Amino acid sequence: MTKGINFALINYLKINGYRTMSRVEVVVGIDIGGTNTVFGFVDRKGNCYYENSIPTKAEQKAEQLFERLFFEISKAQKKFEGKLALVGVGIGAPNANYYKGTIENPPNLSWGKVNVLKLIKRYSSLPATITNDANAAAIGEMLFGIAKKMKNFVVITLGTGLGSGIVVDGKLVYGADGFAGELGHTIVDPEGRQCGCGRKGCLETYASANGIKRTAFELMASTSTPSILRSIPYEKLSAKDIYIAAKKGDKLALECFDITARILGFKLADTVAHLSPEAIILFGGLACAGDLIIQPTKRYLEENLLNVFKNKVKVLQSALIERNSAVLGAAALIWNEMENKA
Amino acid sequence: MTKGINFALINYLKINGYRTMSRVEVVVGIDIGGTNTVFGFVDRKGNCYYENSIPTKAEQKAEQLFERLFFEISKAQKKFEGKLALVGVGIGAPNANYYKGTIENPPNLSWGKVNVLKLIKRYSSLPATITNDANAAAIGEMLFGIAKKMKNFVVITLGTGLGSGIVVDGKLVYGADGFAGELGHTIVDPEGRQCGCGRKGCLETYASANGIKRTAFELMASTSTPSILRSIPYEKLSAKDIYIAAKKGDKLALECFDITARILGFKLADTVAHLSPEAIILFGGLACAGDLIIQPTKRYLEENLLNVFKNKVKVLQSALIERNSAVLGAAALIWNEMENKA
Repeated sequence: MTKGINFALINYLKINGYRTMSRVEVVVGIDIGGTNTVFGFVDRKGNCYYENSIPTKAEQKAEQLFERLFFEISKAQKKFEGKLALVGVGIGAPNANYYKGTIENPPNLSWGKVNVLKLIKRYSSLPATITNDANAAAIGEMLFGIAKKMKNFVVITLGTGLGSGIVVDGKLVYGADGFAGELGHTIVDPEGRQCGCGRKGCLETYASANGIKRTAFELMASTSTPSILRSIPYEKLSAKDIYIAAKKGDKLALECFDITARILGFKLADTVAHLSPEAIILFGGLACAGDLIIQPTKRYLEENLLNVFKNKVKVLQSALIERNSAVLGAAALIWNEMENKA
Repeated sequence: MTKGINFALINYLKINGYRTMSRVEVVVGIDIGGTNTVFGFVDRKGNCYYENSIPTKAEQKAEQLFERLFFEISKAQKKFEGKLALVGVGIGAPNANYYKGTIENPPNLSWGKVNVLKLIKRYSSLPATITNDANAAAIGEMLFGIAKKMKNFVVITLGTGLGSGIVVDGKLVYGADGFAGELGHTIVDPEGRQCGCGRKGCLETYASANGIKRTAFELMASTSTPSILRSIPYEKLSAKDIYIAAKKGDKLALECFDITARILGFKLADTVAHLSPEAIILFGGLACAGDLIIQPTKRYLEENLLNVFKNKVKVLQSALIERNSAVLGAAALIWNEMENKA
C-alpha cells in the first residue's frame, strides 16, 4: 500500500511536479507599434527565449490584432511545452493607460479607445498589465538594464517623438490619471516649432528623430555650411542620415547634434529641479548615436543646473539598446507588477 | 494576595496609566525663519494647543538657537504637564535636507552646514525629523489641509522666493539627494531676470513676492499707466502694497498679478507634464491674494496644458493660510513620519 502510494506520487511528479519544477517561468512581453507588433518570452532575469512579430495592420480593429497575436503566442507556447511556463502578460503601447488598462487614440492606428486588459481576457487568464512604451522602457532599465540599482531616475525615449518614464523611490510615477511623464510636451519656446499636439515649441519638436531633422533643414536654410545632407529631400532625410553624416565629420550634421543636445540639456535641468534623479537615461533610435548625443547633453545639462544639483546627475545610454528593448520593457512591467503584489 | 496585586495595579494606573491615557499626544512643530523661530504643540488632528516664538538671532550660532529654543519648549511643556504628552519633534527650515538631517547655508543665517538632528539629541530623545519649509507645507496640506484625500499634488509656496513640495502616490518626493522640488529654479527665460542662484530667468524671479515687485517696477518703466505704486521707492514697495493697490482697482497693480499668474501658469504646465497631479496648491504670502492670483493662474495653466491634461488639474489656495501653517507643516512632517514607520 505504502509502495503503491509512492508509485502514484512518483508518477504524479513525473507528469506534473518534476516537469513544472524544471520549467522556466517566463512572461510574454508585447510591444504594439504602428507597423509591427513584437512579442517575446522573457524570464525574470531578462533572458529572451523566443521572439516574433506580426504586422499590426493599422486598418484593422484592435480585436483582430489581439486574435492574431494570441494565436501566434499559443503556437509559440506549444514549441516550448514542458520547458517554459507562461505566468504573465505585459504590454507596452503608445497612449496606453496603466490605471484604466486602455489604449486611447494611438497614433497611426484607427482604434479610438480600446480596453485592452478586458479584451485579452478572452485569450488569457494570466495576470496582465499595460503601460505606455516609455514607462515600459523605464521599468525595463530598472529590472534588466542600467538602472538596476537605482531608485530615482528618468528615461527619455528619443524616437520619432520624445517619450519619458519617471521612477521615484523605485516606483513608476503615473500621477493622478496615469498620464504622468509627458516630458516631450514641456515647452522650450512658446513661439517655437509647431507640434503635433497642436501647441508650439514642445521639446519633442527639437529633441527627437523628427526634431533633429527639422534642425537640419533650419540650418541648411540659415547657414551656407556645405553638407552632404543638402542633396536629400525633406521627405527622405532620416535621423540616421544625419548620424552617418556626422560620423563622417559633416559640420552641419555635427551642429545638428549639438543643437539637439543643447535644447535637451537645457530642458532636462528643469526635470532635475523637479525630481533630483540619480540619472537620466537616453533610450531609443537617436540615443544610438552614443557620444554624439550623450556627451553634449550631459555638458549642457550641467551648464544649466542649479548649483545644488551640479556634478550629481548621470546622463547614460540605455543598456537595452542592442537588445529588443521594447519587448524587454513590456516583460519587465508585468514581472515588476507581480513581484510588488506578491 | 490577589487583592494586594489589584491595589498595586490600581495605584500604578493612577500614577502612570490613567494619566497617560488621558493625556493628549502632541508633537512640537518648529519653523526656523531668518527673523523668528516659531514652535507649537500640535495633535494628530492639527489642533494647536500652544504656540510661541523666539528671535532666531541671525548672528548667533545654531547651538545657541537650539539651546534657547528647547529651554522655551520645556518651559511650555511644564505648563501642560499631565495634559499633553510630547511624542515627537518636526522641523521645517530653508535649505534643510531630509536625508542628512542637516541645514546647509540657510539664507540670512551665518550657520554654514549644521547637523540639526544630531544637535537636538542633546535636548530630546524623541523621534525627530527635518525638511525644508515647502516640503513641510506639502505634508501639512496632506494631513491637516486641503489635500487630505489627495495622493498626487504639488504645493507652491509663494514667499520671498518660490518653494515647492511634490507628493506622488501619498509620499513626498525627495529624489536621489533630498533636494527634489526646486521649481522656483526652473527656467522661464534664459535671458531673463538675474536670480539669487547665479543664473538668469528662474521662475522665482517672476512668481514670488519679490518677483511681483520686480514686475511692478518693470511696468512702471515700460508703460505710462498711472498708479499709486509710483510714489513708493523700490526698497519700500512690498507685495502687500501691490495687493492693496490691486484691490482698489489700480490698473498697473492688477496687471502685475496678471503677468505673475501668466508666467506661473505657463511653467506649471511643464510641472503637470512631468507629474500629472490632481491639484496644485498655492501657499504663502502671495497666495493670500486669493482670486487675484488663483483664478488667472488656473486660466493660464489651462491655456498651456497638453490636451490630455486639460480640465483635470485643480488650482487651489492653501487651507492653512489663516492658521500658523509653518508650525502645522513641521508638526505634520513628524506625525507622518511616525505613522509610516509604525
